Amino acid sequence: MLSQVRPSPKERERLRLISREIIAKIERLAEERGMVLQAMLVGSAARDTWLAQDHDLDIFLGVPENSDLSEAMELARLVAPEHEERYAEHPYVHARVDGFEVDLVPCYLVDDASRLKSAVDRTPFHTRYIKGKIAGLEDDVLLLKQFLKGIGVYGSELKTGGFSGYLVELLVILYRSFPDVLRAASHWRPDTVLDLEGEGKKLHDEPLTVVDPVDPNRNVAAALTLDKMLLFSAASRSFLDRPSLEFFFPREDEPLSDEEAQARMDARGTMPLILQFQAPDVVEDVLYPQMRKAEESIRALLTRKGFLILRSDVLAYRDRAVMLFEMEGWELSRACRRTGPPVWEAEHVARFLAVHPHPLSGPYIKEGRVVVEESRKHNCARDLLAAELEGLSLGKHLSEAIRRGHKIYAGQEILEIRDREFRIFLAQYLDARAPIY
Amino acid sequence: MLSQVRPSPKERERLRLISREIIAKIERLAEERGMVLQAMLVGSAARDTWLAQDHDLDIFLGVPENSDLSEAMELARLVAPEHEERYAEHPYVHARVDGFEVDLVPCYLVDDASRLKSAVDRTPFHTRYIKGKIAGLEDDVLLLKQFLKGIGVYGSELKTGGFSGYLVELLVILYRSFPDVLRAASHWRPDTVLDLEGEGKKLHDEPLTVVDPVDPNRNVAAALTLDKMLLFSAASRSFLDRPSLEFFFPREDEPLSDEEAQARMDARGTMPLILQFQAPDVVEDVLYPQMRKAEESIRALLTRKGFLILRSDVLAYRDRAVMLFEMEGWELSRACRRTGPPVWEAEHVARFLAVHPHPLSGPYIKEGRVVVEESRKHNCARDLLAAELEGLSLGKHLSEAIRRGHKIYAGQEILEIRDREFRIFLAQYLDARAPIY
Repeated sequence: MLSQVRPSPKERERLRLISREIIAKIERLAEERGMVLQAMLVGSAARDTWLAQDHDLDIFLGVPENSDLSEAMELARLVAPEHEERYAEHPYVHARVDGFEVDLVPCYLVDDASRLKSAVDRTPFHTRYIKGKIAGLEDDVLLLKQFLKGIGVYGSELKTGGFSGYLVELLVILYRSFPDVLRAASHWRPDTVLDLEGEGKKLHDEPLTVVDPVDPNRNVAAALTLDKMLLFSAASRSFLDRPSLEFFFPREDEPLSDEEAQARMDARGTMPLILQFQAPDVVEDVLYPQMRKAEESIRALLTRKGFLILRSDVLAYRDRAVMLFEMEGWELSRACRRTGPPVWEAEHVARFLAVHPHPLSGPYIKEGRVVVEESRKHNCARDLLAAELEGLSLGKHLSEAIRRGHKIYAGQEILEIRDREFRIFLAQYLDARAPIY
Repeated sequence: MLSQVRPSPKERERLRLISREIIAKIERLAEERGMVLQAMLVGSAARDTWLAQDHDLDIFLGVPENSDLSEAMELARLVAPEHEERYAEHPYVHARVDGFEVDLVPCYLVDDASRLKSAVDRTPFHTRYIKGKIAGLEDDVLLLKQFLKGIGVYGSELKTGGFSGYLVELLVILYRSFPDVLRAASHWRPDTVLDLEGEGKKLHDEPLTVVDPVDPNRNVAAALTLDKMLLFSAASRSFLDRPSLEFFFPREDEPLSDEEAQARMDARGTMPLILQFQAPDVVEDVLYPQMRKAEESIRALLTRKGFLILRSDVLAYRDRAVMLFEMEGWELSRACRRTGPPVWEAEHVARFLAVHPHPLSGPYIKEGRVVVEESRKHNCARDLLAAELEGLSLGKHLSEAIRRGHKIYAGQEILEIRDREFRIFLAQYLDARAPIY
């Protein structure tokens, strides 16, 4: 088991060599330009807590507080001529070097982690803290990381909303072993507060608070969603009860064939609606939150009009954005109620009646209000979505992308989407099976 | 107009004669038997506020407080050999005499209306109060009664939930004329309090309080529903704005033909569900409240399972009971969600998962709870109703009646019910048009 997650001596040696090389190159270039700059390996590579096959190198380029990050960025560009520029709070350089994914991140060298100029400035403090405490616990970190990966809650980016590497390390330091973390997590409930150094008090309205030992006003688990937190808790319980390698290495989902998909859909008897459009050219950490917001807006539209949603999900792959709404009730009568003002508001009543001169039924009085029954504009969910979609405010990026072109698939039509990524997504969506017993 | 509602001199003379005759007969019989008994004409006939064609005579047989009502009842039976016995709080005799509907009601003669032995004992006080105040206002009472009748809110029995004759008389005495009652009612809102004698304070949680001048702790309008009260208010406004005889004498509804019914149903695109059974042999004032309760129970069942109801209504005619549920959404997917306990309730979760071993999807975690998706038992409203009806507690009378036999009609099948009464009900139901503009 451990052999599958622990990098081999050869892998470690390669990582060490490459990182040393890159750091040497940075220092040489800085010296040439007379810059005060400190290059440092941070993250899991620095802490010996990286998973085999995870070939990520985070190298920070620290400059004094009073200098300018742009010079460091300039230098990072020179280190890796083949690179792309990415943006978090500040720009940084991403490059592939000898099969490693290398991030070269400019940051400020500050004295006190609670007085940062930028969020990345905190990372060196994290590395220092973990390095001082982690000795002997590295394997437990690897096991926990792989466990979280296996159950689908590893990664604090917004798409996942799971556990960051730093959070994993803190949990292992706190509870002293992989099984002890699981035992503790088994009992978690919302509003759990953990603190390695202090007395621990809830900082914000987040389900799990883990006080950052280098900055006590920060919650390391701020990005963790309630459901991912509790999935880990339930999976921990299940694993302790019936341990299995499958938690770490679940069977990979195969793309659904037409026949399989058809059979699953028949059994469910639902009406899947898919909205597909070209994804705007933004990173996942921007795209997914926007898609989630749009998902909520469309859910609200459908629900407000009386259609019932069983479940929904979103997916971005390649240049595509897909939003799936699985309808539990998708057709309604033509006739619907329009509830007007209270009867005693004479002017409002008069105006309401003037606007509804020829109802199917009514006007009548119900619970103190004037009511008419008339024809609804759209009596099936697909028509409603098609008609109202462009009128929804779905955020600038998505609204534009949808206006440029989109397609709605309903029922069996969704099988016209044959992409492997989509069919795997569909398999996972239909399973929706978390590793809990 | 007035000539249509005001009894002719000949009609009045007949009523006077007949009531005098009956009272004389009662007094004679009482004398023969040595009973202390006071026979009196009460109600609208006594007050000259009866509508032409309304041939109702209420004659009370008052006996001293310390005697027994059963003797008076015995006597009432002798007065009208052809009669039926009815029950309110106590039994009374109902008979047809020369084209009049005569109620012979035993009651106690009490000194103070606030210290009654039975609700009917209050009536003589009402008659005395009204007789002392109504002189010159009789025509206004007749107009208001006919207006209320025309808009469908006259009658305080439980089926109607409208205005009693006594309430009408009090309103006219308070506001001094028919148009002034309408003008005042135009401005009514819930929690209106009227008091002819005192300062008027709300007695109970009823939308309109009219303090009974002969018993200040009683609300004369207690039976009036919010919607009937406000319908009168809105119709008053509409009538004052555009007076029309139609308010008093609306066009009678014709029974719907198959073709008309079909056309109306097509336009609505709803799914009517009708539950029909033999009405239990109880009076309307018992039957209707029970049917309304059963209507609520069935609405709750359908709604709880995700089906949408546009409107519902009930009807009793001859020996039949009919409950109509017009469905706005009547078909759902096979798949449905079952939401389990919060994740941290380990034992409950384990039990929940054991009970749902092979879901269509899941288990997964949603908003802190374990969720599975499985097949619902009934995915259309008709099947649900058919399967669960006998398990609902619909009150003793109705539950038994339904168990003895019932039929469910769905969609076009409802046209198999060809009774004239039902087809008129259907026409009124589909119109649902209150006289408000």
